[in-house]
Amino acid sequence: MAAGYVHLGSGAAPDPSSARATFELFVRTLPPRRNFLVAAGLEQALDFLENACFSAEEIDYLRGLPLFRHVSPRFFDYLARFRFTGDAWALPEGTIFFPEEPLLRITAPIAEAQIVETSLLSTLHFQTLIASKAVRLVSAAGGRPVIEFGSRRAHGSEAGVFAARAAFIGGCAGTSNTYAGHHFGIPVYGTQAHSWIMGHDDEAEAFRNFLEIFPEDATLLVDTYDVRVAVEKIIALGRAPRGVRLDSGDILADSIWVRERLDRAGWNGVQIFASGDLDEDRIASLLEDGARLDAFGVGTSLVTSADAPHLNVIYKLVEVERGGQVRGTLKLSEAKKTYPGRKQVFRISDAEGTFSGDIIGLDDESFPGAQPLLIPILRGGKRLELPASEPSAAVRAARERLLSARERLPARLLSLEPAAEPFPVRHSARLEALFEQVRRTLVQSRRI
Amino acid sequence: MAAGYVHLGSGAAPDPSSARATFELFVRTLPPRRNFLVAAGLEQALDFLENACFSAEEIDYLRGLPLFRHVSPRFFDYLARFRFTGDAWALPEGTIFFPEEPLLRITAPIAEAQIVETSLLSTLHFQTLIASKAVRLVSAAGGRPVIEFGSRRAHGSEAGVFAARAAFIGGCAGTSNTYAGHHFGIPVYGTQAHSWIMGHDDEAEAFRNFLEIFPEDATLLVDTYDVRVAVEKIIALGRAPRGVRLDSGDILADSIWVRERLDRAGWNGVQIFASGDLDEDRIASLLEDGARLDAFGVGTSLVTSADAPHLNVIYKLVEVERGGQVRGTLKLSEAKKTYPGRKQVFRISDAEGTFSGDIIGLDDESFPGAQPLLIPILRGGKRLELPASEPSAAVRAARERLLSARERLPARLLSLEPAAEPFPVRHSARLEALFEQVRRTLVQSRRI
Repeated sequence: MAAGYVHLGSGAAPDPSSARATFELFVRTLPPRRNFLVAAGLEQALDFLENACFSAEEIDYLRGLPLFRHVSPRFFDYLARFRFTGDAWALPEGTIFFPEEPLLRITAPIAEAQIVETSLLSTLHFQTLIASKAVRLVSAAGGRPVIEFGSRRAHGSEAGVFAARAAFIGGCAGTSNTYAGHHFGIPVYGTQAHSWIMGHDDEAEAFRNFLEIFPEDATLLVDTYDVRVAVEKIIALGRAPRGVRLDSGDILADSIWVRERLDRAGWNGVQIFASGDLDEDRIASLLEDGARLDAFGVGTSLVTSADAPHLNVIYKLVEVERGGQVRGTLKLSEAKKTYPGRKQVFRISDAEGTFSGDIIGLDDESFPGAQPLLIPILRGGKRLELPASEPSAAVRAARERLLSARERLPARLLSLEPAAEPFPVRHSARLEALFEQVRRTLVQSRRI
Repeated sequence: MAAGYVHLGSGAAPDPSSARATFELFVRTLPPRRNFLVAAGLEQALDFLENACFSAEEIDYLRGLPLFRHVSPRFFDYLARFRFTGDAWALPEGTIFFPEEPLLRITAPIAEAQIVETSLLSTLHFQTLIASKAVRLVSAAGGRPVIEFGSRRAHGSEAGVFAARAAFIGGCAGTSNTYAGHHFGIPVYGTQAHSWIMGHDDEAEAFRNFLEIFPEDATLLVDTYDVRVAVEKIIALGRAPRGVRLDSGDILADSIWVRERLDRAGWNGVQIFASGDLDEDRIASLLEDGARLDAFGVGTSLVTSADAPHLNVIYKLVEVERGGQVRGTLKLSEAKKTYPGRKQVFRISDAEGTFSGDIIGLDDESFPGAQPLLIPILRGGKRLELPASEPSAAVRAARERLLSARERLPARLLSLEPAAEPFPVRHSARLEALFEQVRRTLVQSRRI
C-alpha cells in the first residue's frame, strides 16, 4: 500500500500536498477473562519509530519482487530516504485501559503511517498482552512475589526478553532472564534445575555444593526424586537455604508437610517456593486450600498469556487531511464498525479517587475533573522527552504507574473472573455526532 | 548453575576431567488437538550454538549481581572464553515427530550444555509450535493456498519473522512478512487493507488506483462498507483483478453471491480470498458448508498457535560421563518421569511406505527396516554440513520433507480432531531395561 501511495504521489513526504493520515491503535474487545488491560511496549515502539529505515539490500529485494514491477521507481527512492516524520500521542506504559481506547495515535504522511503499522502493532500488542496477564498472577498471589520464569517457552528469544519486561511492569517481582535483567534493570532470580541434582552422583552433595556457592540465595529444588527425603537431607546438612522449591506432585500437601518440617527444624524463615505449570487459577486455588507457599515462579502461562494468547488489537485510519481539508474516516463492516476523528481518553474518578468511568472523546474536548490519558510523545519523528537516561527508569516508572492505578480500580475489576458490571466506558456526544455525520456523508455521496 | 559447575571445576572446558553431559530436548505430551508435531527451528538453533558468546559488558553485569558474590572469579573468565564446543544430533526440520522423541540431543561439558538450554528451547519450541499449527490449516484448506498474515499479532517482530518461516515449512504458500520473504526466500503476498479504501475519497477510485499499480496482483478488499456494492463497483471498472477479499461478515453467503456475480460478469478466473480471524475449524466448516473460496489468509490463530500457544517442551539430562564413567540419569517426580541414556528414534513403515510406528531406543540400537531419524549435525561446536548457501534452500528442503512425510502418515492422524488410535510409539526393551537399572541403582545407593 505504501508503494501505491507513493506511486500516486501522496506519499512523497516533502510534498505539501501529501495526505496526512491519523491512525489509532486500539484493542477492539477484552479477552473472555480480562476486566482491564495494561499498556506496555511504548519505549520499544518509540525506538522503532525513531530508527526505522530501509537498507540498500532490503530495497533491492523489494525492487526485484514481481509484485512491484509496475510501481514507479520513485517508491524505491522514497524507501531509501525513509524516516518516520510524524507525530504521536500515547498512553504511558503501565496505564490501565479498556477496549476502543487508543493506546497510540499516529499522525503522519499516509505512506509513512502505513509502513510503520505492523511493527507498532506487534510491539505494543505483545507487551500489553503480557503485562495484562502478569497483573492477574500478581493479584492471585495476594502480595507474595511472582517471578517470571518463562523464557524457554516464550515465542522466541526476543519474546522472552520483552515478556520479562512486560511482566515486571505488570507487577512481577523479577525474572530469570538475565538479558532482561541487564538491559532493563529488572531484578533477576536464579534457581537450580533438576539437572543440577541429576548431574551429581548424590542429591545431598548437590544441595551442599549449591549452598556453598550461593549461601544467601540458594533455593533448593526438592522434587527430583522424593520431596520428603530431599527435605530431610537438607535439614541434615545443618545449613538453612533461602528456600526450597516444589515443582511437581501434590504441591498443596507437600507445602504443608514441608512447612511443618522446616519449622520443627527451627527454620521458620526458609521460604517455600512453588513452580511447575502454574497459572493464576492454580495459584488462587492452592492458597485458598491452605497451601503454605511464600513465592511463585510462573513461566509458560505468563509469557504466552496462555488462556488468551492474543488481543484483538488493530490500527485504524480515523482521519485524512488533504489540501487543508480534514475528513473523518470510518469502517462500517458488520461487527467491525470504527469511530472517526482524533480521540482522547478522559478518566473520571470519584471523591475517594477510585476510577469511576472513561469517556472516549475528541482530542479537543474536555470534561471537568476528568484526566486526559493520552500524552504527546513524538513530534516530527522525534521524542518530546529524551529517553530516560537508563531504560530501567522507564520500566520502574511504568510499574509504579500500574501498581498505583491498580489501587484506584473498582475492586470488582480485580477478580480473576469477568466482573458482573464492566468498567463504564462511553463515547462522547460529539464523537457520536461525528460518527453519524461521516456515515451520512458516505451514504449521501453514494460512496457506499 | 553454570557458575556452580565452573566453581566446582567441572565446567572448565579444556579440563579433561570435566563432566560431559548429554541433554535431550523433547516434547512431553501432545496438546489436546494435535496428532503429531513438525520439527522446525533447527537452522536458528545451530546459528545460535555456533555463535553464542558473552560480551565484556554482559560479563560485568553478571559479576555485579549480588547473587554471584561468592562465585569464583574463574567463572567470569570462563564466560569471556565461552564458545559452545559440544556435539549435537537432531531431527531435520520438517520431520514429523511425537512426544518423548528427542528433537535435539546435545553432548558437551555440563556447564556449556546448561548455558545454551534456554535459547535452544525457545528457538525450537516456537518454530515447532507454529509449523505444527500450519499443517492443520493447510489440511483444512484441502489444497487451497493458505497465506500467513499474522506478523502484527505475533509475539513481537522476531516472532513474526520466525512464524512466517515455520508456517512455510508447515505447508503455507507464503507470507505477508517481507523480511521473512527476503531472508528465507518465502513467497510474499500483499493485499490492500481497509485503510487503502478509507484513505480514498471514493471506493471505486481506490480500486481503480490499486489495479493500475498492481495490474496482475491486485486482490481487492470488498468489505469496508458493503460487499455487494463494492463488487458491483469493481465489475463496473471493467478490469478484472486477480482476486477479491472477504474479511468480515457472512463469508459463506457472500462468497456464494460474489462467485455467482463474478461468473456472470465472465470473470471465472477471479479468485475469492477469505481472511478475518480464521482458524482451521472455521476454514473446514466454511468449505463443508459450500463456501466458494480459493485461498485463505490466516494471521493470529496461526502465529500464536492460538488453541495451543505452547508445547510442553523440556531439556533433560539423560547421561553424565565423568572420568571415563558413563552414568544414565533420570527423574522420578510424579508424572514427570524421564528415561536415561542417549536415544535414537526409529521409524517403521509398512509395505506401502506408510509410517506404522516409532521405537525410541538407545543410539547404538538398530531395528531391521526402521529408519533412524536423528542425524549428527554439530561436532566440536561446528556444523557437520556447511550451512546451505542460502537460508532459503534449508527452508525449501524442510517444507518438502514435511509435505512428503505427511503423505506417509496414516490418514487418521490428519484429522483436525484427536485420532481415536494415536500413532504407536514405544520404548525399546533395552531402554526400558536401562531405566530399571538406573532406578534400582539410585534406590540401592540410598540416593533417593
